[in-house]
Amino acid sequence: MEWPRPAAVARMNAVVDWAGVDLAEGRLHVWGVQATSVVAEKTADLDATTPDDVAAALLPLISDWPGKGRLSVLVAGLPSPHRASVPVKLLDLAPVPVPSGNPRIRLFALPGLKQATPVDLMDGGETRIAGFLSLNEGWDGVICLPGLQTHWAQISAGEVVSFQSFMTGDLVRALLRETGLRGAVDTSVWNPEAFGEALDAALSRPERLAAGLACLRAGLLLGTLEPDQAGARLAGLLIGAELAAARPYWLGQQLAIIGSQDATRPYAAALAQQGVAATHTDGARMALAGLTQAWRRLQLQS
Amino acid sequence: MEWPRPAAVARMNAVVDWAGVDLAEGRLHVWGVQATSVVAEKTADLDATTPDDVAAALLPLISDWPGKGRLSVLVAGLPSPHRASVPVKLLDLAPVPVPSGNPRIRLFALPGLKQATPVDLMDGGETRIAGFLSLNEGWDGVICLPGLQTHWAQISAGEVVSFQSFMTGDLVRALLRETGLRGAVDTSVWNPEAFGEALDAALSRPERLAAGLACLRAGLLLGTLEPDQAGARLAGLLIGAELAAARPYWLGQQLAIIGSQDATRPYAAALAQQGVAATHTDGARMALAGLTQAWRRLQLQS
Repeated sequence: MEWPRPAAVARMNAVVDWAGVDLAEGRLHVWGVQATSVVAEKTADLDATTPDDVAAALLPLISDWPGKGRLSVLVAGLPSPHRASVPVKLLDLAPVPVPSGNPRIRLFALPGLKQATPVDLMDGGETRIAGFLSLNEGWDGVICLPGLQTHWAQISAGEVVSFQSFMTGDLVRALLRETGLRGAVDTSVWNPEAFGEALDAALSRPERLAAGLACLRAGLLLGTLEPDQAGARLAGLLIGAELAAARPYWLGQQLAIIGSQDATRPYAAALAQQGVAATHTDGARMALAGLTQAWRRLQLQS
Repeated sequence: MEWPRPAAVARMNAVVDWAGVDLAEGRLHVWGVQATSVVAEKTADLDATTPDDVAAALLPLISDWPGKGRLSVLVAGLPSPHRASVPVKLLDLAPVPVPSGNPRIRLFALPGLKQATPVDLMDGGETRIAGFLSLNEGWDGVICLPGLQTHWAQISAGEVVSFQSFMTGDLVRALLRETGLRGAVDTSVWNPEAFGEALDAALSRPERLAAGLACLRAGLLLGTLEPDQAGARLAGLLIGAELAAARPYWLGQQLAIIGSQDATRPYAAALAQQGVAATHTDGARMALAGLTQAWRRLQLQS
């Protein structure tokens, strides 16, 4: 099976058969695909909540893509009520037509996942998982998808059996924007020592998170802590607490981490520190693979 | 010993001997005191970080207060480098003159506290503790000061022996403003059942905080959770995790909670659920008592 590959440079004037959109972390990523090749690719900032938002953000990006009439656009990560309950076979999920409010676009939403106990949901991660499984047939284990909401999904025989989400990334972002840590923390430098120490502390005393944060603030104000140390310790505290709670998902499991380099690096480092090896694959690439698989299913249906 | 009491209505034209300022939770609270009576009282929003900020915010509030020349103003809660290291006898702390940038005001900062291990600091809570101890001579035990930074301070023989801070309030505020919970949570209604359930869950599995937050978000999006339930569960999750970490501070200790009704209620409810009784006293009243005590010390010095 062949999968579309990102083109180094978008091929001018190549007709686009369909477009795939990945919404993740407040970004929209769109690929224009012809046969098995990506012929155009664009990104934009977007906190999309409705199909209309997506269509509106999409139009200026794809206006110069030569197409054949109305463009079919498959979207992963769009919050919609069409979520499938786990356990679920991802190959069974059919894209759902949604009104785009624009005559130039036929919009299809890829359904997310929901879980009754504990209550949980996933919007977009399922498409990355589907992409990963399409490239790794028969793979069983646990997939970790770091992001604003980090998901840990247990995979068996092509099914998402169960999953567990953590608001870790969203929490880090809110802490950096809105609390006493605002402006004082440097997250641009990777300080593995400070990260590792905080991780160990959090894994053994995960309940001390709010105390650890107050300690960071005090250290920054008293000048005993450097901004980059504080940044690494912040990540270590939060990921340590998450690993303590997600232990059944990673201990003794075959593990894959899907996401951008920035999002996955602290998770990979944290797991390595626990002696756990994990496969790493890029999130956008897996999203494109999942979208392509969904497009093929749609073609077979029609 | 007599202490100033808030006047029901500010007495017009009563000369103000000195003014006391409490900075807490982004609010400035100023009292004008004559002999042993509060003759004027005002509040304003202020996130003060420098003496100049305080002086600038203060002037419009006190411009119509009749005084005798230059007004002495004592300020609690002003971040300044003049913090005293614990263990410390609060009565030994002398107000520190700081330049106000304004000839009408003689500004004195009440020193905060700092701790080397674990690194910690307190700006303002120490004055409330001093006020509480001045009204409860010989009191030993633990004082909990809920706020953006919640402090637990161990008191023995008039000394703050050690303390531990938690970024719980700041974290709640950031979660409500900046994360996937924004706009979806109602914290105006007190739902004791939802609070109690989340508290129990967090006390037994405090490491599951970020998972509990993701669960709240999912419940709100899927419609299985009401906004007021989510608000109470958010408080229960965070205070439960804090109580799990602060156990040595409240288990089997004589306990007092100092703060506003809103800030202290969830803590009092959480401790009551653990079978722990606590004295509750108002934060502003304790700040005024602490400021008054500092004013008297200043008078004795000069």
